[in-house]
Amino acid sequence: MSLYDQLKFDAVSGLIPAIIQEQNSGRVLMMAWLNRASLEKTIATGKTHFWSRSRQKFWMKGETSGHTQSVKDIAFDCDGDTILIQVEQIGAACHEGYKSCFFRSVHQGNGGVKITEAQIIAPEQVYGKK
Amino acid sequence: MSLYDQLKFDAVSGLIPAIIQEQNSGRVLMMAWLNRASLEKTIATGKTHFWSRSRQKFWMKGETSGHTQSVKDIAFDCDGDTILIQVEQIGAACHEGYKSCFFRSVHQGNGGVKITEAQIIAPEQVYGKK
Repeated sequence: MSLYDQLKFDAVSGLIPAIIQEQNSGRVLMMAWLNRASLEKTIATGKTHFWSRSRQKFWMKGETSGHTQSVKDIAFDCDGDTILIQVEQIGAACHEGYKSCFFRSVHQGNGGVKITEAQIIAPEQVYGKK
Repeated sequence: MSLYDQLKFDAVSGLIPAIIQEQNSGRVLMMAWLNRASLEKTIATGKTHFWSRSRQKFWMKGETSGHTQSVKDIAFDCDGDTILIQVEQIGAACHEGYKSCFFRSVHQGNGGVKITEAQIIAPEQVYGKK
């Protein structure tokens, strides 16, 4: 059975969620969405390609910022409805300049929110000032 | 601003995806969906609670199998539309008896699929024979 026979792309949107994890640190970097074409392109090129739901656009991670992701492994879950991609990340995965998009945690003590990692790049250095 | 003001539950389903990661190993165990009530219950009890889309039912992870997850950290991403929960996992996260639901990977050489970890529990030992 081929890979694509074992994956469930959403019947309406044609998308499947992908968790992106930095292989050497184990840090979860981001979650993004793939359609079949972006998964095929990811496998063919070894660089992550996604589908932007907000922009309705196919894109390669890092195409503007240079912060590309080299694919090291592609796994999928028991239900075939989520993908886990291990990568080597150049620069910051997050458009806000953090290594990971998950840079905020719930504060266990008071239920507030805390920043848990340092910003490594100023966003305006990457994308230019808005 | 409260946690809930920073999260985007889907406008139609009321759900937000949650990545579950084993804190001590960094292994991504599963992805599941939460509504606001299940997130509140997760925070209040320190055990993961989800919303089952297939069964349309609120459930505590491990309520049948005993394979519960103790919450160590709850983070969320820059867009506020994905949650990352660090846990301590009792037993197997996957209902197929694997530690992680992501036990299959794409074989880089031939594009086929390979099993990447050992089954640690026979599913029928957990849920009874079907």
